[in-house]
Amino acid sequence: MTNAIRILGLDPGLRRTGWGVVRVEGARIAHLAHGVVAPPESAPLSERLLALHRGVAEVVAQWAPDEAAIEETFVTANGASTLKLGHARAAAMLAPAAAGIAVAEYAAKVVKKALVGTGGADKAQIAFMVARILPTSGGATQDAADALAVAICHAQSRRVRAIGAAA
Amino acid sequence: MTNAIRILGLDPGLRRTGWGVVRVEGARIAHLAHGVVAPPESAPLSERLLALHRGVAEVVAQWAPDEAAIEETFVTANGASTLKLGHARAAAMLAPAAAGIAVAEYAAKVVKKALVGTGGADKAQIAFMVARILPTSGGATQDAADALAVAICHAQSRRVRAIGAAA
Repeated sequence: MTNAIRILGLDPGLRRTGWGVVRVEGARIAHLAHGVVAPPESAPLSERLLALHRGVAEVVAQWAPDEAAIEETFVTANGASTLKLGHARAAAMLAPAAAGIAVAEYAAKVVKKALVGTGGADKAQIAFMVARILPTSGGATQDAADALAVAICHAQSRRVRAIGAAA
Repeated sequence: MTNAIRILGLDPGLRRTGWGVVRVEGARIAHLAHGVVAPPESAPLSERLLALHRGVAEVVAQWAPDEAAIEETFVTANGASTLKLGHARAAAMLAPAAAGIAVAEYAAKVVKKALVGTGGADKAQIAFMVARILPTSGGATQDAADALAVAICHAQSRRVRAIGAAA
């Protein structure tokens, strides 16, 4: 089996964007790296977005993922928060996209179901399962754990698709 | 007077992002160029955002603006629309930001007031004033006219600030 690929997971936020990289080979999944990009909070919006974008671009350059995945944003009643998240999400997504890497999107419920088995799982359950699936990811902050969760979800999803295609 | 500068105005949208470039020297303002970036509608979100970003980056490279301006987004009751606009806005803003160009933000009411004299002006009034202030911009579509309007607003705003600073 030489079909190992690297998946970058992203959990975007204007203050903190979590990222995580996993290595997938068949049914095996392993933790490679994770971290958080935190743009300066006091800078103008365009500079914050640029810092976020460049931070993720550095991760892409360093870890050379083959595919990327990101959570679909849930639209909240707070329009201002939704708008900020939209900005952060685009700045983050553009980094793998600019490197020619496809970015898959998963609804939060799908990510939760992939990891915990139920779409109603809470953050602690997600973090617990991330630590269990990727034992060497210990110490990942909430943002990074959420990013790893999306990467794991994508790994499972593409495996299911591969099995389906081979059947 | 050799203090002529170029201002890029942006009117972001995921389907169509309008842009306009004006040349400002003291109280004089002249139209240089305008256009619309229209990403492929059927592509995945990350690719649409990349096409939008690259389209604006080409405008920045070709017209070498010194400053950029964009409308502050009004948050609508439709969260999904707000989210899309947030994505488009970030992808557009990142182009001048990546070139080291400051991006000023103006509320829609401020832009309307700068051009028409009232924050309640409608789109037709804005387009009329853009065509009057920049006679050679004829034929600009709505998106491009809105982008030129933001550029004009920024030109006026920085002039007012310059006069204030000199007083």
